Amino acid sequence: MTSLDLLQPQTQAASISAKLTAMREVMATYQLDAYYIPSADEHLNEYLPEALQRREWASGFTGSAGDMLLGQDRAWLFVDSRYHEQAELQVDSSLIQISKLGLEEHKTLVETLETLGQAKPGFRLAFDPFTIAVEQFRTFQKQLEPVGIKLVFLLENLVDKIRLQSPWRESERIPALGDSQVFLVPDEVTGETIPQKLIKLREAMQKANTDILPITKLDQIAWLFNLRGWDIPYNPVFIAYAVITLDAAFLFTNLERISDEIRAALEGVTLLPYEQYEESLKALLLQNDLRVLIDTKHTTMGTYSLLEGVRVVETANPIEAMKARKNAVEIEQMQAANLKASRAIVRTLNWISVKLASSESLSELDVARAIAHNYQQETNFCGLSFNTIAATGSNSSIVHYGTPSPEQILTPGQFFLLDSGAQYLGGTTDATRTIIIGEPTPEQILRYTEVLKAHINCAMQQFPKGTTGAQLDGITRYTLWQEKLDFGHGTGHGVGAFLNVHEGPNGISKRVSETLEPGMVTSIEPGYYQPNWGGIRIENLYVVKDLSAETEQQSDANTTPWYGFEPLTYVPFERRLIDLNRLSEKQRQWLEKYNSAILEKLNPTLEPAEAEWVKTACNLSA
Amino acid sequence: MTSLDLLQPQTQAASISAKLTAMREVMATYQLDAYYIPSADEHLNEYLPEALQRREWASGFTGSAGDMLLGQDRAWLFVDSRYHEQAELQVDSSLIQISKLGLEEHKTLVETLETLGQAKPGFRLAFDPFTIAVEQFRTFQKQLEPVGIKLVFLLENLVDKIRLQSPWRESERIPALGDSQVFLVPDEVTGETIPQKLIKLREAMQKANTDILPITKLDQIAWLFNLRGWDIPYNPVFIAYAVITLDAAFLFTNLERISDEIRAALEGVTLLPYEQYEESLKALLLQNDLRVLIDTKHTTMGTYSLLEGVRVVETANPIEAMKARKNAVEIEQMQAANLKASRAIVRTLNWISVKLASSESLSELDVARAIAHNYQQETNFCGLSFNTIAATGSNSSIVHYGTPSPEQILTPGQFFLLDSGAQYLGGTTDATRTIIIGEPTPEQILRYTEVLKAHINCAMQQFPKGTTGAQLDGITRYTLWQEKLDFGHGTGHGVGAFLNVHEGPNGISKRVSETLEPGMVTSIEPGYYQPNWGGIRIENLYVVKDLSAETEQQSDANTTPWYGFEPLTYVPFERRLIDLNRLSEKQRQWLEKYNSAILEKLNPTLEPAEAEWVKTACNLSA
Repeated sequence: MTSLDLLQPQTQAASISAKLTAMREVMATYQLDAYYIPSADEHLNEYLPEALQRREWASGFTGSAGDMLLGQDRAWLFVDSRYHEQAELQVDSSLIQISKLGLEEHKTLVETLETLGQAKPGFRLAFDPFTIAVEQFRTFQKQLEPVGIKLVFLLENLVDKIRLQSPWRESERIPALGDSQVFLVPDEVTGETIPQKLIKLREAMQKANTDILPITKLDQIAWLFNLRGWDIPYNPVFIAYAVITLDAAFLFTNLERISDEIRAALEGVTLLPYEQYEESLKALLLQNDLRVLIDTKHTTMGTYSLLEGVRVVETANPIEAMKARKNAVEIEQMQAANLKASRAIVRTLNWISVKLASSESLSELDVARAIAHNYQQETNFCGLSFNTIAATGSNSSIVHYGTPSPEQILTPGQFFLLDSGAQYLGGTTDATRTIIIGEPTPEQILRYTEVLKAHINCAMQQFPKGTTGAQLDGITRYTLWQEKLDFGHGTGHGVGAFLNVHEGPNGISKRVSETLEPGMVTSIEPGYYQPNWGGIRIENLYVVKDLSAETEQQSDANTTPWYGFEPLTYVPFERRLIDLNRLSEKQRQWLEKYNSAILEKLNPTLEPAEAEWVKTACNLSA
Repeated sequence: MTSLDLLQPQTQAASISAKLTAMREVMATYQLDAYYIPSADEHLNEYLPEALQRREWASGFTGSAGDMLLGQDRAWLFVDSRYHEQAELQVDSSLIQISKLGLEEHKTLVETLETLGQAKPGFRLAFDPFTIAVEQFRTFQKQLEPVGIKLVFLLENLVDKIRLQSPWRESERIPALGDSQVFLVPDEVTGETIPQKLIKLREAMQKANTDILPITKLDQIAWLFNLRGWDIPYNPVFIAYAVITLDAAFLFTNLERISDEIRAALEGVTLLPYEQYEESLKALLLQNDLRVLIDTKHTTMGTYSLLEGVRVVETANPIEAMKARKNAVEIEQMQAANLKASRAIVRTLNWISVKLASSESLSELDVARAIAHNYQQETNFCGLSFNTIAATGSNSSIVHYGTPSPEQILTPGQFFLLDSGAQYLGGTTDATRTIIIGEPTPEQILRYTEVLKAHINCAMQQFPKGTTGAQLDGITRYTLWQEKLDFGHGTGHGVGAFLNVHEGPNGISKRVSETLEPGMVTSIEPGYYQPNWGGIRIENLYVVKDLSAETEQQSDANTTPWYGFEPLTYVPFERRLIDLNRLSEKQRQWLEKYNSAILEKLNPTLEPAEAEWVKTACNLSA
């Protein structure tokens, strides 16, 4: 999956109008020409806790991406092609102009600001520096300061200020921030103790000539302290900051939910209330001659602005690479979790075929509920890893199709695309299968087979140490391109171990210069989408493994390590959509080996009828 | 080709010792702990005019890359694997320690400085800011300031200061800088007049909200003013600076060599002496409210330090993209030039086969001379585009093999690799062929065929608008990787139109996120190298073309433009090294089409015996 929506009630236009008016009054007291309300929050989350969903509150738009700009006379919402339609439905365009990015005549945020800045010398644009990454701020600076726009840091968040006032406080529930239970993940599941992780991290900090590291991102904090929580939908993290020095560690969070057991496990870690992050960091920085490690992608300008007078070393947060390269125990956990998920998907696919065979009507929502139920039947289930995409017919061509509908029915002759995942204690899953309801057309078979070939080409590729995500993206696409086919999203994303379903730094996409290293987990998910016709996506998770252990080195391969992908997902592809004649010998061999592995890994644990369904699905010669 | 060496006499150790002592005396007057002498010069040239070859003068090392660091007690030269051996031969390691980058225990420049900085608080490192790009300086800052190193701009170049003193001035010739003839390239050859180019450039400057553009790079200046010169080996450029504003243009160069004809063509361009660049730029910047366009990759800190108090917009110099996308006339010129070069290579290959058939002994130098002679026979020849690589036997495995030797003889059973190019009025060429002398072994055939497959896979790939060099790099390598083979350089580089043989921004390499656009010229040059066995490289130049004009759009391809490669080089591959059975049907078709094109384009203009050789070389079924 690549993104998702949170389901929320549509806010009334009258209420939005009142909110904008209230915010504009405060803006005037600061002499502001515009106020920027980004999607992001203090922790640069992809999914936000409700209390920090400020752009949603101010605009009514609930999509996962889309920035808002509030001027004194006008307001704008900037949404990409995934959300053109949803924004129209949710936003009152008499109050907020919807800029549909990618369409002619629709300006980007920066272009809009350029025009505003040129029209009014000394234009003042303000924002909360804690809601914008250092890197993004610098891009703003580069683009907006030349047209004379003055960027103003406003530490008082305007949305929060108004939202916390009556009548809003009375008429809208404002949820608490960070009150879910935080729990320890046992060392048997993480494979590495907290002290071990801290030692490794401090070594990396010293290697980068730094003494102190403030941590903003919740998944980095969860990983480092072997803790999880449910402050945010789908992501097993908790609202917190952390600061690590060479001889101390500080964790800032709502302490009420920290048990004695956790306190014992966090021996040597100072626990402080969330609100004390800023003042504590400032106090720590008063020490002489400190060098602060700052990852400009993963730190807000809010934190950055606390560093005045301190020596800053800008480099990647070492946790990113450590977290991405799963250890042997984490790999086992990911294998186990993804096998559970594979079983749940297989059960769901079998259930669909049984229901359809008995002429029952199935809606997208029926299937989404069924797969959630099947995920839940497996042990140590903790929740979904994202909002299930269950799309039938032409809905399948919408890459980020929203909430499954009870009115959209699986219909003969059409594709059905199911993109889903779960969180199990220890492992995160994500997989997509596209099936055909009834009989396929030759064109459907042709396109599906081409997407499958692209998937297999990437999955079976061996590659030397140093290979980047961009190179593998090209390898995935070349057969599609020879047919003048392509897909408009990346080939793959990193996945956390019982963490976020989207995780850096690795990925398979045209501008990813990060290399793929052993232990990294990635999706491979090529697709093909044709509006009003339908869409195909075939997604498995894989772990990168070092092949040198298992194969003898060729003399001339020297000492170059060679890597490859090992599947984590074991679900049959749609046999009726595969034209075997279009597969090369090597692609067929890979497919047969994969099908054998499915039978071996899944069937012993399935009910007889389900096992029979898998056997048929894996039988290519049938 | 990927780089090359300039041939120079080895400087005597006694002389180097005296130079270092003299420079250290001046360093002491500035209280410097170290002085950095990079390979680069004021124009960030890849090939330097002799007068600016400071690192060579100070160290004796003549390689195309390698930085020097001069401390008070020690000195270091940092060279990559291409130059480990050459540095040993040319540099007296009792005076200058050679750091062989990539080898264990050999520190990089930054690592060396980190150690020095940690040992001495307040360590002062100086350099000439005009010899370092803004981007490189910032990397230094990021890496060196955290360990406490103070970076000192020294406007007086220490090497120049000593070099211009007796006894050096007397004992070593110091060549004049920028005294070659500058000449106009006619509009029929450039396809665009100087005023047209200035209009386009100013539009781009305005689009970036800028008013003034200082230009540092010589090929950008040569392109913009349709001028060429021979101040530098192989690159048809002349030493100059330029500054463009929205209503004026300034060219700073040695005016003695500027003819009246050029003055007439440069109507509206103010010509000023080279030495007046700095003061003129400073004077121009005194105007109120100017916004300066700075390309941090292609501008020195020397120029950047003139900008204090001025608003800077950091973005790519628009000339880079304009120069890279050749217009229709430039493409014709490149086609014509590369056809001439192809003929010269074919003549040389035929000549080799005739000589060897009559049992004559041929050395690398013999072949290098022969191909230079054949290039020269073609009309409008202006010189080689780089130092020919003619490598026999195991020399062919050295990617940047140096000067062809009279003692290295083409020997049966061995590869011979010929990488060469020429400058013709209007076009630049670059091509590599690897041939077998006598009978090949099965292993030689196997490896050559795999490299050829990689070449063809890239050359025949069609790709959508937006495809990056990194994606195509992956597509080039995937068949090699499946055999656990690889090569340690990029797949391709941009090539100028009667300009530098290495030109940005496009390239085909794993970290190139630039896209390939119609009109761009690129080499495709996969290889395979095994030390002590030999090396293979197969290189053609191609121009990117828009395929949509010639093929009917598939309905579902929508409006995506599709691009492909059209060959500029037409030279047969080594038939005796191709195992046709290992080629796919599509690869064979591409090869047959390419061979037909060679026959059609070359043979009508060849001598009968040469035409016969081409026919045989292109006959795959023989």
